[in-house]
Amino acid sequence: MRDSVSHPALAQWMQETQAIVEHALEAVLPAADVIPTRLHEAMRYAVLGGGKRVRPLLVFAAGEAFGAPRARLERAAAAVELIHAYSLVHDDMPCMDDDVLRRGKPTVHVQYDDATALLVGDALQSLAFDCLAHAGGEPASTLAMLQRLATASGSSGMAGGQAIDLASVGVKLGADELEAMHRLKTGALLSAAVMLGGLASGDLSIEARAALESYAAAVGLAFQVVDDILDVETDTATLGKTAGKDAQQDKPTYVSTLGLAASKELAERLRRKAHEALAPLAGRALRLAELADLIVLRKH
Amino acid sequence: MRDSVSHPALAQWMQETQAIVEHALEAVLPAADVIPTRLHEAMRYAVLGGGKRVRPLLVFAAGEAFGAPRARLERAAAAVELIHAYSLVHDDMPCMDDDVLRRGKPTVHVQYDDATALLVGDALQSLAFDCLAHAGGEPASTLAMLQRLATASGSSGMAGGQAIDLASVGVKLGADELEAMHRLKTGALLSAAVMLGGLASGDLSIEARAALESYAAAVGLAFQVVDDILDVETDTATLGKTAGKDAQQDKPTYVSTLGLAASKELAERLRRKAHEALAPLAGRALRLAELADLIVLRKH
Repeated sequence: MRDSVSHPALAQWMQETQAIVEHALEAVLPAADVIPTRLHEAMRYAVLGGGKRVRPLLVFAAGEAFGAPRARLERAAAAVELIHAYSLVHDDMPCMDDDVLRRGKPTVHVQYDDATALLVGDALQSLAFDCLAHAGGEPASTLAMLQRLATASGSSGMAGGQAIDLASVGVKLGADELEAMHRLKTGALLSAAVMLGGLASGDLSIEARAALESYAAAVGLAFQVVDDILDVETDTATLGKTAGKDAQQDKPTYVSTLGLAASKELAERLRRKAHEALAPLAGRALRLAELADLIVLRKH
Repeated sequence: MRDSVSHPALAQWMQETQAIVEHALEAVLPAADVIPTRLHEAMRYAVLGGGKRVRPLLVFAAGEAFGAPRARLERAAAAVELIHAYSLVHDDMPCMDDDVLRRGKPTVHVQYDDATALLVGDALQSLAFDCLAHAGGEPASTLAMLQRLATASGSSGMAGGQAIDLASVGVKLGADELEAMHRLKTGALLSAAVMLGGLASGDLSIEARAALESYAAAVGLAFQVVDDILDVETDTATLGKTAGKDAQQDKPTYVSTLGLAASKELAERLRRKAHEALAPLAGRALRLAELADLIVLRKH
């Protein structure tokens, strides 16, 4: 995403944060020489050395705004990214999207096999909760983080959105239905990332919480709108995943539902909404504002 | 399992506990008319109205021995059973064991489809942690329960055992390797069931904890040894799942590794070991002792 970063301090913060997250993931994943070695190797293949780490960046941006301890942010960021990584592994499987390319590499079931991909996803999900349950600090606030992550992952969150997505192949959705689907499919986990960052501080006022929720909702949806735009406008090599897939699979997207121009206007509206949501935080959430810009203005 | 229950008070306790657990599962699963309806219907299909509920019984038996609050035991029992149910749904999929019958009904991917089965398993795993994270009571002890459940489910527990199991098709394992595999594949979650029950009390001495761990290890392994014996000696109708499957798939089992007679002796040895482990608890763990007998002496 670096090409769309104009603020040099942001670029440096991102690079440093991505390195911290990579290190945290590396540490929490079992080593590849621990039995069962093939499973552990495949888990590391699925998670490490790729991805923009948008969710971890949101965790850190929100957490730093409220002075959350770094060790807890590392755990929260790793947990959210592990959930995201597991969902990609399962989504790419033949019985789902049947995709061969992810983050510029062969997908897990191609590189290994279907059974391994299934177990990799399952084990990464367990690891996410294991990782977060060991975040340290105040147990009540860790529990609150766990509750949020579990709900965001399940049938009323990401997995539920995936089920609606599957059911809508070849179906013409209205803009409201499309939004409802994406609020679950990608929005729930992106929102959870923001909220886990805030909750990691252990001390979030009702006002701050509401501001973060509102920001997270706007950014979560904006991310998907931009994804749909990029799927049409960008080539496979730049994306690192198969471009034009949604149209090919006859899946409803913002572009197919609203058209390209209206989708771009919506993304811009959501970006402004994210900024407005941060107003009550009176400047302490600079990074969150910058990430909203980045998510909407990114080129891949 | 009722045919092997000799103690009438135990039979009644089991029936009552199973009814409590069924009700807890029913309550924690999203209703089938909540969107996404097909996913929720399939999740309920996978979990409700079947199974011996061995793990929930172990949760309650251990929990009642230490005076754990019933509400917390319900949550813990439901969480462990949801993890078990998710693992069955994924294990039965075509890319794993490819089985069509489970608990006397068509498996989830047969009744629905592969993609739905994948999402059902994923969402049940999230729900298990969601359910446990809302167990109420003292946050620190709930966190300890979550840590145990997550570790038991992941790559150093159940999912890891499954990976070793997959890799050992057609391979001749030694008795030690077979035990290592089963300690992960079935033992980890059965042990977690016992320990979650104890931890739910919020107040477990080091001595009690050690006794429970030792009991859980013996019972966890005994369960698998007996499963392997039943797979050979019992018909499909009685089991409610495909009999003779392990031999068919050329998977190493206790019977194929040790022979039938030695497997039966091992099961009996483990049963006695479970009883001995309970000795320091001085009679407060009657139900756990009875369940050890039941697990070894069951006919299906």
